[in-house]
Amino acid sequence: MTVDFAKRRRAALRQLRRRKLDYLVVTHGANWYYLTGFTGESGALVLGNMGTTLLTDGRFTTQAREETHGIKIETQHGPLYKALGEYLKRINAGATGFDAAALTVADWKTLRTAAGAKWRGVEAGGIVERLRMTKDSGELAVMRRAAVLVGEVFESVLKLIKPGVRENEISAEIEYQMRKGGASGPSFETIVASGPRSALPHARPTAKRLRKNELVVLDLGVILGHYCSDMTRTVYLGRASQRVRGWYRAVQDARQAGVAAVKAGVTCGDVDAAARTVLKKHGLETWFVHSTGHGLGLEVHEEPRVARDQATRLAPGYVITIEPGVYVEGVGGIRIEDDVAVRTGGSEVLTRVKRDLIEI
Amino acid sequence: MTVDFAKRRRAALRQLRRRKLDYLVVTHGANWYYLTGFTGESGALVLGNMGTTLLTDGRFTTQAREETHGIKIETQHGPLYKALGEYLKRINAGATGFDAAALTVADWKTLRTAAGAKWRGVEAGGIVERLRMTKDSGELAVMRRAAVLVGEVFESVLKLIKPGVRENEISAEIEYQMRKGGASGPSFETIVASGPRSALPHARPTAKRLRKNELVVLDLGVILGHYCSDMTRTVYLGRASQRVRGWYRAVQDARQAGVAAVKAGVTCGDVDAAARTVLKKHGLETWFVHSTGHGLGLEVHEEPRVARDQATRLAPGYVITIEPGVYVEGVGGIRIEDDVAVRTGGSEVLTRVKRDLIEI
Repeated sequence: MTVDFAKRRRAALRQLRRRKLDYLVVTHGANWYYLTGFTGESGALVLGNMGTTLLTDGRFTTQAREETHGIKIETQHGPLYKALGEYLKRINAGATGFDAAALTVADWKTLRTAAGAKWRGVEAGGIVERLRMTKDSGELAVMRRAAVLVGEVFESVLKLIKPGVRENEISAEIEYQMRKGGASGPSFETIVASGPRSALPHARPTAKRLRKNELVVLDLGVILGHYCSDMTRTVYLGRASQRVRGWYRAVQDARQAGVAAVKAGVTCGDVDAAARTVLKKHGLETWFVHSTGHGLGLEVHEEPRVARDQATRLAPGYVITIEPGVYVEGVGGIRIEDDVAVRTGGSEVLTRVKRDLIEI
Repeated sequence: MTVDFAKRRRAALRQLRRRKLDYLVVTHGANWYYLTGFTGESGALVLGNMGTTLLTDGRFTTQAREETHGIKIETQHGPLYKALGEYLKRINAGATGFDAAALTVADWKTLRTAAGAKWRGVEAGGIVERLRMTKDSGELAVMRRAAVLVGEVFESVLKLIKPGVRENEISAEIEYQMRKGGASGPSFETIVASGPRSALPHARPTAKRLRKNELVVLDLGVILGHYCSDMTRTVYLGRASQRVRGWYRAVQDARQAGVAAVKAGVTCGDVDAAARTVLKKHGLETWFVHSTGHGLGLEVHEEPRVARDQATRLAPGYVITIEPGVYVEGVGGIRIEDDVAVRTGGSEVLTRVKRDLIEI
């Protein structure tokens, strides 16, 4: 996909002007990638009417020149935030927006000291994050492929899932297949959690072997062409009891209700409530210990949050996850998660793997 | 390895008392793991004379109870730093150390507001990082195994390295073999950079195919039993020219000089200078665009920094990398990196892979 990074920078500049800021300092990797294409791990971007400058250290300057167009690259000497402050001082920067959520207290102090008394930092977090919420057709095309790829990986490892195999053998195979399929890597540490461990929503895979009559939660995502996917399926090893089937159906219904609630104009809180209400009706609400979903894009967790009372309204091009779950301590957990793109009158489910209980 | 987390907490408490602090807030994952064994991805630890409390959200409370001993677990309601501030207010916490490098400006404001006017936050960064610098015999044993494993993985993929193979096929195989070998994962995104791309010190593996007469830099590390290893080797596809051999020998000598300088009592700046001087003598100093090394342990980059003018003195049990390199834009790069444990009269090189130029 050819990305018009300059167009994105112009959109950010318009936001700057609306807030009467002269400059914006971008200190979060996904944000500077979004605005320039630079994939280096260290740097800071200064965006202003006169152009964009990327400060980075010697490890990344060649890479930065290759990856970006139409911006100035400055090699920093000394610590990044000292160099950034000195740069802002040199260009006589006035009111400068920065993201308080992407700057540590220590870096902030270094920056402020180096920038001098005349410089004025203004909290302006979320400008780039809000632009990133709306995916254009090129981004959606990549995200569709990322969602399809992770589904294919899941289906290809299903045959591995049986009693005796270790959780971390399955996760190793999953991440290997992701890369074989063209992913640059997993979008987060793959979760394979079996038996009572499946009741831990964020369990890391261990050397534990799968056993008969256990639930297995698999939560996996790829990074493909810089964009993330994220899906969860739950498998039962054997014939599930009526109780487990009841839980599964409740989660399935909650996921369905969550997806059905997604359309432009609806608040994220409403989507969360749609899924949560179903679990409440089944008396499972206290076992649903997290929120219904999150934004997805360059990062696996990004804006908007799909959680209780979130007032952000969905708009066409947003991509979110819908992932209700129930977690019964000591017994096991069930989660079903899909990636969903928001459309005007509804949604497009990007995840293409069926959601029925898989009994192996 | 059985870890005496309580002993570590007592060591941290002694540091608190020396600074006349009542409490220490720990907001960095590697630090709370070090003090408690909790591996969850979100939380905050409050350490004081009356005991230790871990605040975390519903996704992690069961896991926290399973992983820790002798500490209190509190389930946070609402945002983490608001909950943390409210907790500090409730316990009437006085002077409380926090780490300005592990707290964003936004989280700091939330925390301070919730903690109320009577609470006093005191910058006290680095307390746990400094404890972590000294590895005990149990930690060193694990780190030895982590260094050996990554060496074995490197040697097992050497047969794959030949013209026509893609960089990302090699990195996929490397990370698969890491997991097969028992690693929980790579300690950073594996670098396989060939030809002119090897001149980018932090290149990500791409679909580029290896070609004859190219340099290939492979930089890889595992996480094994929570601890990281990190090694780099450089391979030449074909018969290297005299020029390339000259560069390689210079880097080899620089690595040797760096390792030879390592012993208790020496400053990190001296170690950096030892390696840098060798490259200077060869007229290659301007192509050595980064520092000589970094501390290694629970994190792949931790204290101490082995860089120009760093005054930190090495002590027995510290583990650092020694990784000089030269990077010739448009041509290629060479880096050799070993993990080295500091001893009283010298050092122990943990990386067990030979360092001669490999021509394939």
